[in-house]
Amino acid sequence: MQTREVIERVLQKITPTDEERTFIEDLMRELRDIAKETIKTLGLDVKPYFVGSLAKDTYLAGDHDVDLFLAFPLKTPLKELQERGLELGKVIAGKLDSYEIAYAEHPYVRARYKSVKVDIVPCYNVESWEQVRTAVDRSILHNRWVLENLKGRNDEVRLLKRFLKGINAYGSEIYVRGFSGYLAEILIIKYGSFLDVLENAHFMLRQKIIDPANWLRRAHEITMRTIKREADRPLIVIDPVDPRRNVAANLSWERYGVFYFKARQFLEKPSEEFFFPVEKKTGSYFVELKRKGTHLITLIFQKPEVVDDVLIPQLERSARGFEKALSREGFKVLGWNVGYTGGKAFIMLEVDRREREKVTIKPGPELYTQRAQDFYEKNERVWLIGKRLYAEKRVKENIVHVIIELLEKNQVSIGKNIRDEVKEAEILVNFVPSWLGNEAYLFLSREKWNLKN
Amino acid sequence: MQTREVIERVLQKITPTDEERTFIEDLMRELRDIAKETIKTLGLDVKPYFVGSLAKDTYLAGDHDVDLFLAFPLKTPLKELQERGLELGKVIAGKLDSYEIAYAEHPYVRARYKSVKVDIVPCYNVESWEQVRTAVDRSILHNRWVLENLKGRNDEVRLLKRFLKGINAYGSEIYVRGFSGYLAEILIIKYGSFLDVLENAHFMLRQKIIDPANWLRRAHEITMRTIKREADRPLIVIDPVDPRRNVAANLSWERYGVFYFKARQFLEKPSEEFFFPVEKKTGSYFVELKRKGTHLITLIFQKPEVVDDVLIPQLERSARGFEKALSREGFKVLGWNVGYTGGKAFIMLEVDRREREKVTIKPGPELYTQRAQDFYEKNERVWLIGKRLYAEKRVKENIVHVIIELLEKNQVSIGKNIRDEVKEAEILVNFVPSWLGNEAYLFLSREKWNLKN
Repeated sequence: MQTREVIERVLQKITPTDEERTFIEDLMRELRDIAKETIKTLGLDVKPYFVGSLAKDTYLAGDHDVDLFLAFPLKTPLKELQERGLELGKVIAGKLDSYEIAYAEHPYVRARYKSVKVDIVPCYNVESWEQVRTAVDRSILHNRWVLENLKGRNDEVRLLKRFLKGINAYGSEIYVRGFSGYLAEILIIKYGSFLDVLENAHFMLRQKIIDPANWLRRAHEITMRTIKREADRPLIVIDPVDPRRNVAANLSWERYGVFYFKARQFLEKPSEEFFFPVEKKTGSYFVELKRKGTHLITLIFQKPEVVDDVLIPQLERSARGFEKALSREGFKVLGWNVGYTGGKAFIMLEVDRREREKVTIKPGPELYTQRAQDFYEKNERVWLIGKRLYAEKRVKENIVHVIIELLEKNQVSIGKNIRDEVKEAEILVNFVPSWLGNEAYLFLSREKWNLKN
Repeated sequence: MQTREVIERVLQKITPTDEERTFIEDLMRELRDIAKETIKTLGLDVKPYFVGSLAKDTYLAGDHDVDLFLAFPLKTPLKELQERGLELGKVIAGKLDSYEIAYAEHPYVRARYKSVKVDIVPCYNVESWEQVRTAVDRSILHNRWVLENLKGRNDEVRLLKRFLKGINAYGSEIYVRGFSGYLAEILIIKYGSFLDVLENAHFMLRQKIIDPANWLRRAHEITMRTIKREADRPLIVIDPVDPRRNVAANLSWERYGVFYFKARQFLEKPSEEFFFPVEKKTGSYFVELKRKGTHLITLIFQKPEVVDDVLIPQLERSARGFEKALSREGFKVLGWNVGYTGGKAFIMLEVDRREREKVTIKPGPELYTQRAQDFYEKNERVWLIGKRLYAEKRVKENIVHVIIELLEKNQVSIGKNIRDEVKEAEILVNFVPSWLGNEAYLFLSREKWNLKN
């Protein structure tokens, strides 16, 4: 199929119809009216703004999340903004279908209206980056910058977003570490079109720095500080509305890599599947274990009630902790995988063996040291290799016993919010409960991360 | 038993009787007469000297090796010395019971006379170290220095030599790397007595430099060069007759370590066993393998016809080569042991397992490199960890297959004189022929090197 044809077919699926567009416009008008009226009734000096993809008309068909921001004057003290903002949100939401309180940097109201999710978030009414005080304040500036610069290329953004979703590289959440919607918009504005962005995948990586608003000229030192700080990232995209920020700060090498190879593949052999992939194939983790001759250790434990931004990094850190500790103990960790489902979190470790030798060789002090005599007396058999003393050490054979001992002796670096839970974990060898079977297969086969699949 | 008593008992065994002494004196007189007469008959300008422990009266009872040195004038060209020296040796030896030609730096005659081995070695008649031209020339100087400085402490030397023999630390040959007779004599001259030497075992190690002839004052720069060059040795004993030489150059840390601990043990609990040990206990290598949960790989191959000074270091280097290569391949080498018996040489490796996983993880290039695309295309499954690509690699499971492959691909560093032989080696797993059974036990149990036994 020709590239044009593929793109046309995809566009048909992702561009909102006139009917959908009318529904959204009506919905936003209603919400604005309700907000304005409520603000007026309460006698507040607050301006309502819509931000996000609906406000920018870069949303995908059927994908409707309203972001209604309530902008307070800069002079409002932070505490007052938080309290009044939440109050105001509640009153507005009271006029909609339902709501609950959600938590980010500060609490906000998450409402539903006509089956659409409406986040009502208080912020400061900033005019420039120097005024930004809370993490959400920039959104109004982002919105304005995109509206001023997009110049009708809204469908190109839609294509890029859908492509990124299809290859599983969309979303800056910690779980994904992919491309945010704002980053996709910037790339379209910078390179011109969806295809231009794909064609520049390699160039972007080599050039590394994208600076669409020319901050390097306008605020050189601040921008250089940002560049230095972010030097290890695959991309540094200086935020057009704030030179202190890398828009791609949460983009991982792994997610950029997926985009990198898929972009090339699409250009060589375009198909709708990049946008709408068929389900990843699955298989048996038993068969994988047999094929590879490796072993799967799975720790399953209670998921503590913390947000993903805390949980995921701690799970990852703990997996790396096990990798280090086990390798000190003579087990090689070929890979690891973490996650959670429902109330249960897990750490999977692929290791080279389940039993090690019973006796290992322990290096001691050098001959001429004071400790040499102690070492000599404490051990049954002692010998020298060069100037260093050595002796035998009896060790636990089975990896499960080794893990239990490591945990008891606090010799594994584990994230503090999951430490107690990990210590109580079930430890399974070469077997997982059925709800983890597919995860185990995707991990062991590396299909989970396979750039080729 | 008291120290004095032990020493008295040992001295009874190691001091030559009057009868033995008379036999040796008569033997040396006869040999000197034969040598002088032969030299005269042939009209040569050569002086016969006796060197070694018989000449210094520091030999152990029953331990009779005559060293008869034929000293040529300094002006003799080296080639002439070698040829005439060998000729002269042969004529002298022709008047004894039997002889053969042996090889060191140059060939010499090894004769037998009245059941005593007589080495007849040509050398230069040097008066000081500046004149030394061949490795053996120093012997006459050594002999002279010891005779001048020993001052009747001959029995103390005998005690120290027998002690070093008993703990297996005597002899500077490459196979032992222990204390030479000359080194033992110097230590007695320096510290005064056998017990004084033992009591100084720790002090020697800390002080490191022994300079009995005050070379540091007399030839500071040359001596400092020697010290610098030998800095990694356990001891630096500046040769009283040559500041360029460390008498302890061949003393290994391992052998010094044995002396170090045994000296202390003897002082704490003296016994004759240090001088005359009962045979090392033996056991089953099967039982050791079971106890430790490790595996024994033995390579057996034809011993090439080279001297120990060449063979042993090459065997050791090859064992270290296997240690490195196998560890790159995921096998841990806990220890190694080399040697030969008759015409067969062997390399033993104690490893943590005999089978490894069938699939291993191969790191590839970094994402932004030119090679990344190649790597991506060549491998079936490819994923990123950070900025680096990874893929699976199928590998041989069994350690014997791994070793064969390593040898075929020349990926083991092996001494050049044994390279062909090692490539043809038999490779045995957890089994050795009966002539290696005890060696395997001593190695696996580390009794071979156990400082405590």
